[in-house]
Amino acid sequence: MSTPTAHLVLALSCPDRPGIVHAVSGALAEHGGNITESQQFGDPSTGLFFMRVQVETRAPLAEVRAALEEIAGTFAMTFTLDEVGRPVRTLIMASKDPHCLSDLLFRHRFQRLPIEPVGVVANHPDLAPIAAFYDVPFHHVPVTKETKDQAEAELLRLVRDLDVELVVLARYMQILSDRVCQELAGNVINIHHSFLPSFKGARPYAQAHGRGVKLIGATAHYVTADLDEGPIIEQDVERVTHSDDVAEMVARGQDVERRVLARAVRWHAEHRVLLDGRRTVVFP
Amino acid sequence: MSTPTAHLVLALSCPDRPGIVHAVSGALAEHGGNITESQQFGDPSTGLFFMRVQVETRAPLAEVRAALEEIAGTFAMTFTLDEVGRPVRTLIMASKDPHCLSDLLFRHRFQRLPIEPVGVVANHPDLAPIAAFYDVPFHHVPVTKETKDQAEAELLRLVRDLDVELVVLARYMQILSDRVCQELAGNVINIHHSFLPSFKGARPYAQAHGRGVKLIGATAHYVTADLDEGPIIEQDVERVTHSDDVAEMVARGQDVERRVLARAVRWHAEHRVLLDGRRTVVFP
Amino acid sequence: MSTPTAHLVLALSCPDRPGIVHAVSGALAEHGGNITESQQFGDPSTGLFFMRVQVETRAPLAEVRAALEEIAGTFAMTFTLDEVGRPVRTLIMASKDPHCLSDLLFRHRFQRLPIEPVGVVANHPDLAPIAAFYDVPFHHVPVTKETKDQAEAELLRLVRDLDVELVVLARYMQILSDRVCQELAGNVINIHHSFLPSFKGARPYAQAHGRGVKLIGATAHYVTADLDEGPIIEQDVERVTHSDDVAEMVARGQDVERRVLARAVRWHAEHRVLLDGRRTVVFP
Amino acid sequence: MSTPTAHLVLALSCPDRPGIVHAVSGALAEHGGNITESQQFGDPSTGLFFMRVQVETRAPLAEVRAALEEIAGTFAMTFTLDEVGRPVRTLIMASKDPHCLSDLLFRHRFQRLPIEPVGVVANHPDLAPIAAFYDVPFHHVPVTKETKDQAEAELLRLVRDLDVELVVLARYMQILSDRVCQELAGNVINIHHSFLPSFKGARPYAQAHGRGVKLIGATAHYVTADLDEGPIIEQDVERVTHSDDVAEMVARGQDVERRVLARAVRWHAEHRVLLDGRRTVVFP
Repeated sequence: MSTPTAHLVLALSCPDRPGIVHAVSGALAEHGGNITESQQFGDPSTGLFFMRVQVETRAPLAEVRAALEEIAGTFAMTFTLDEVGRPVRTLIMASKDPHCLSDLLFRHRFQRLPIEPVGVVANHPDLAPIAAFYDVPFHHVPVTKETKDQAEAELLRLVRDLDVELVVLARYMQILSDRVCQELAGNVINIHHSFLPSFKGARPYAQAHGRGVKLIGATAHYVTADLDEGPIIEQDVERVTHSDDVAEMVARGQDVERRVLARAVRWHAEHRVLLDGRRTVVFP
Repeated sequence: MSTPTAHLVLALSCPDRPGIVHAVSGALAEHGGNITESQQFGDPSTGLFFMRVQVETRAPLAEVRAALEEIAGTFAMTFTLDEVGRPVRTLIMASKDPHCLSDLLFRHRFQRLPIEPVGVVANHPDLAPIAAFYDVPFHHVPVTKETKDQAEAELLRLVRDLDVELVVLARYMQILSDRVCQELAGNVINIHHSFLPSFKGARPYAQAHGRGVKLIGATAHYVTADLDEGPIIEQDVERVTHSDDVAEMVARGQDVERRVLARAVRWHAEHRVLLDGRRTVVFP
Repeated sequence: MSTPTAHLVLALSCPDRPGIVHAVSGALAEHGGNITESQQFGDPSTGLFFMRVQVETRAPLAEVRAALEEIAGTFAMTFTLDEVGRPVRTLIMASKDPHCLSDLLFRHRFQRLPIEPVGVVANHPDLAPIAAFYDVPFHHVPVTKETKDQAEAELLRLVRDLDVELVVLARYMQILSDRVCQELAGNVINIHHSFLPSFKGARPYAQAHGRGVKLIGATAHYVTADLDEGPIIEQDVERVTHSDDVAEMVARGQDVERRVLARAVRWHAEHRVLLDGRRTVVFP
Repeated sequence: MSTPTAHLVLALSCPDRPGIVHAVSGALAEHGGNITESQQFGDPSTGLFFMRVQVETRAPLAEVRAALEEIAGTFAMTFTLDEVGRPVRTLIMASKDPHCLSDLLFRHRFQRLPIEPVGVVANHPDLAPIAAFYDVPFHHVPVTKETKDQAEAELLRLVRDLDVELVVLARYMQILSDRVCQELAGNVINIHHSFLPSFKGARPYAQAHGRGVKLIGATAHYVTADLDEGPIIEQDVERVTHSDDVAEMVARGQDVERRVLARAVRWHAEHRVLLDGRRTVVFP
């Protein structure tokens, strides 16, 4: 009786030195693995090596993981091993703007974005119908100066109770506290509605209009305690002209925001994004 | 005996109010003008109106100008009237990087960029062979802290003696003094090698690499006394990845720089760029 | 008592000759009109002149229309005069793919796309929930070889009964008969999932994959009796690589499709698209 | 005495099966190789596996090659092993249009495009000054119906005598015979001035204008006996509008052509392009 073939994805980073690829591919070959797609990169500026491999194998995931853990010890490696396409348990946070939330849920439902949306948290009730349409539980958690601590406690409770792996700030207009940023470090993706580092902070489109730029942009990045300074995952831009006022920039910018955020979420969920200091390595 | 047809271009701006287009098109119609291309724009945020018209007419330019001057008085209008395609007398300033200079001269020679390059001014001798190949006089004007005033005097002398209408800073690595900026205001175009307002000042590609951006850009703008703050004419970007180091970003950025600068110079020379406060109106 | 100001948009085309702009702007000025945005273009290859004007005026629309009709007679002009932002009554046709339908309805609801979706017609029942979510009546009109005539009669009846001004084929996988194409000529927009004229007909992504192209695209065009040959309104592309299989191309192409279609629909609804033989003039 | 470190690049393809990466990385590890960058791809549609590796090693290239040849036998592998950055001996063919030739020579001189231009062959004398400026021997080889055989013989002689590895058709307006295509198969890159497969054959910009497309493009591809049907290496597009006539499209298209060709030539010279049936795998 033959074991069914599994399709695994391995993403790793470690200090760069000779022999890493050979050791890893050896461990995979020993378990009958056939590499279908792989990318490697050594960053001379940080001395780190990055690798992502998709491999077909009949060996159980746990067995492959055990083999890799040995290597990880030798090479001071951190790695994740997962099944290709396994949906990542995701909590989406939003406020009133529907475009990013609606787009993520649409892609999950109809285009197989590999996430499992386990809940929507919003500090306003407006977006409840969208969550309902896509059958995702909606949690209205208002935030005021007084209730911020309590709201964040509720957020962390949901993250725990729902086994959340990824939090997506889909135009969530509240700043997370340092404590939350640290507790969820590397697992929170935000979309900022400007081409960072231009126009940090509030009302970036108004800033962009005032400056007379000819392209507006959006930036998906990991959230850190430094506002709008976390490692950038993806960016894109759209052309604007003198005749586009702030409202028009906002409307056109929303297209860029949702597409940049969707790419970042997908790449993260597919283990294509690796941290390299304050930068990211993306194997798209 | 019939007068040959001239192709004229009119670019104007004035406070917005009813009747401007009618008055202008009336004056053109009276001189037998046939409008072949036109764009208008009223900016609600500044209350200014902008118009660019290309018109075929048998009337002499001076006659058309006289008719427009009357209207200009009524509407507090500033305007330029020129022949379509007349080459604008241009002085190009450079340092050691050849890509922008070489590209502008190539486009002038082979692709009818509507400028007349009357001279190249450089603070280093390296680019003399390129100027020579394209038959443009090369002026080596070194700049040190001690000789800066003298060098700028030489620049202004050349501008006067050569009837220069436009100065292009084609990766000229010196900062012009406030005095020169003011004297040539609106007639100096610079290319900055970043997507402004990100990464002002020195070594923008190194800044961009450090920040981990996923797109690099270039910005063509009018030079003002505020460094890297003048009205933006054109911007564009190019995608980079984690594997592009600073040197690679520099190389790829040069492609964006030369293409953004060439567009800005062409639009300016074709009277397609109008100042709207610290922004520009571009009728491409 | 002052009449409130109306914001009108005029779009016209006629054989090119001197005096058109003057005559039109004169008529507008006589009715106290203030031009806020305008573009003109004379096409030397067809001898036609095109103009789009947005004008603020206190005169009633009917009065302005009457004044323009006189001019139209003189210049053999066809024109439309409308209120800026008036929603165009739109019937959306779809099959099973939800991305274009969902996107149009989202934009109408949340981003003020200036259409009034009066109904969704689909030859499959799958998309009914999306129409329901956005409160748009859903008409399931199956099409087989035998029922095609009947289905088209139903379509034309809906167009009449619902005062439909625009029909959008949002990935409707049926070919309209010549008769319907002619009856609705100029008022049906289709999205084709390739960069036309490449890959006409069926399964364009499979064709594109087979050919090994490095960019995939989408094309919005007016529907004519010549399949995939109608005047192009808008196109865009997205980069693909060797590692994107047909399924991945389909998924990524859907992003381009919905964005290209949305732009085309918006421009049409804002009277920014004018027919110029088998090409279009677009004043975006 | 230590051997200096060499930086090698290996590019290979073979039928896909388990163990390839392990075997190759093993051979490299045995020679003290440190992988700095690598990409792999298995194409399910052709059953082929592709790999490109950059490796630092102190072992002599010949020794590494010998080790790889053993593996190549086992896996029915074809491979190239080269020094990173070694300039590829390149013959450039052109006619009268200077933009592609000038751009390639500029990039070679000033931006370290890794080619060694060993000669320019042109069927017109016009571009001789550009070749002279960049110190590349210019061969004027006119082509008429009568002399075509002779001209091609001269071309093949030059290829032999100059040890040419790559022939670039930089807007060379002659069609190579089947014999030449076959003799130089896989080593001739052409730039076609359209977004293939749209607008094959002559005057693509005129075709594009007639069709009213909203984007024009260029395609770099390997030359095969099937005109404009060879494997595509790279494509890009630029936006055009109704106001761009054919001449303007030609001018703007030249920017896309030169940039697409330069990328293709660079990727080929860096062994980043592998043939996969009638498609290419590009590891950029």
